[in-house]
Amino acid sequence: MKSNILLQLALRAIFTAAASSGEETAPKNFAVALFHSFDSIDVTGPLNPLFYLAFSKQLNLSLIAPTYEPVWVAPALDSLNVMNSSMWFSLNPTHTYDNPPKDIDVLLIPGGAGATFGNVSRVIDFVRETYPNVKYLLSTCTGAGIPARAGVLDGKRATTNKKAWSTITAMGPNVNWVSPARWAVDGNIWTSSGVTSSLDMIFVFIEEMYGKEFADEIQGTIEHNRVTDPCDDPFAELHGVQPSGDCKE
Amino acid sequence: MKSNILLQLALRAIFTAAASSGEETAPKNFAVALFHSFDSIDVTGPLNPLFYLAFSKQLNLSLIAPTYEPVWVAPALDSLNVMNSSMWFSLNPTHTYDNPPKDIDVLLIPGGAGATFGNVSRVIDFVRETYPNVKYLLSTCTGAGIPARAGVLDGKRATTNKKAWSTITAMGPNVNWVSPARWAVDGNIWTSSGVTSSLDMIFVFIEEMYGKEFADEIQGTIEHNRVTDPCDDPFAELHGVQPSGDCKE
Repeated sequence: MKSNILLQLALRAIFTAAASSGEETAPKNFAVALFHSFDSIDVTGPLNPLFYLAFSKQLNLSLIAPTYEPVWVAPALDSLNVMNSSMWFSLNPTHTYDNPPKDIDVLLIPGGAGATFGNVSRVIDFVRETYPNVKYLLSTCTGAGIPARAGVLDGKRATTNKKAWSTITAMGPNVNWVSPARWAVDGNIWTSSGVTSSLDMIFVFIEEMYGKEFADEIQGTIEHNRVTDPCDDPFAELHGVQPSGDCKE
Repeated sequence: MKSNILLQLALRAIFTAAASSGEETAPKNFAVALFHSFDSIDVTGPLNPLFYLAFSKQLNLSLIAPTYEPVWVAPALDSLNVMNSSMWFSLNPTHTYDNPPKDIDVLLIPGGAGATFGNVSRVIDFVRETYPNVKYLLSTCTGAGIPARAGVLDGKRATTNKKAWSTITAMGPNVNWVSPARWAVDGNIWTSSGVTSSLDMIFVFIEEMYGKEFADEIQGTIEHNRVTDPCDDPFAELHGVQPSGDCKE
């Protein structure tokens, strides 16, 4: 009887240690590398499901930008605002590239016109300096052009928005660019295709890091029709991108 | 010959007048009714495609909030932050409910925990006062509870997030709540289901207001797998919501 209790206690200790170890290795600290003229859903696509997850897991967010001034979803250049529109808005950074957060487990890199046409050299430098210290790097859409120019995608499988394929792939001549691919995973680098593909990528990330039950629960909350097959990418054909590489690891 | 030229000129004048009239009636001025603890994609879901449209059409955006202070995607109450997370961020309002924009063509109302659990009485009052002067009112997710409590959905077909169905429908006992429905249109009131359904709703709105060519182009840009049938709503069954009303007009 007593040995039975001791066995139970020992088993519980092992289970607790394993669970605690799992807790420790699951990513906690997320940071987004922002710049002028980022795409809004490239950011909120991943952050929205993570928001709901943050009620079950202790998660932290940093938004890094060139300065502490608001950073805008706006045309990359004023001259591109040909209709004189004002359909723009801004987010508030928490950090700057000169004063970034100390611990970043997951670095998220959005795309948008700024990633392609803006001056993002400071962001590229930051990604090059920071990548060795992060657990995961995730990019969405034309955001892949930033780690590509930082060299961290060299020799890796990666994807990007199929509409901007030739522009972005030219930024990383040594990258194994993959198409069709809704998203691609190579080691600790996750890259997704256009804008809304970020949602499909982050749900797989949540499944793998925190468990399928969280992904399923949050999918039901935000009523997202998930693409669960990384090879399911009709936009490659729509934009006339020739098949290349393997959409699965 | 001369009469032929005059006929051509007359026809061109009629065509130009018709096109110009179309330009004038298409919505230009969008406003989002924000509050603490709104859902991020309930806002960026519609704003993201409208951002890309704003390079072809003159579109303006106002973000209305209780004060000019940043307005947060955060738990509705601090006490709900049980994991002590900081996975939150903020947008910058352009207007307040006491000093709203003069002309609003389209009023967008997001959901989120704040719409259900927060004090949104000022937002409800604003919607009640403003609805008679807007061309269109669009809500997403639990945001439907705000116009419901304002009384403007009374006698109208409307839908909401199926996971929050009983809570939100109780806010509008005289509304013809529709399920299954990815979105529902009744006159100038458009309501969509959970979070990402806002994208499917706004693409139909863009098609109807500005033309299918813009919706198709932007869908390809942001690589969104559109739901094009308003009745295609698997989340009604997932959340055990009984069928009611007609998902099509």
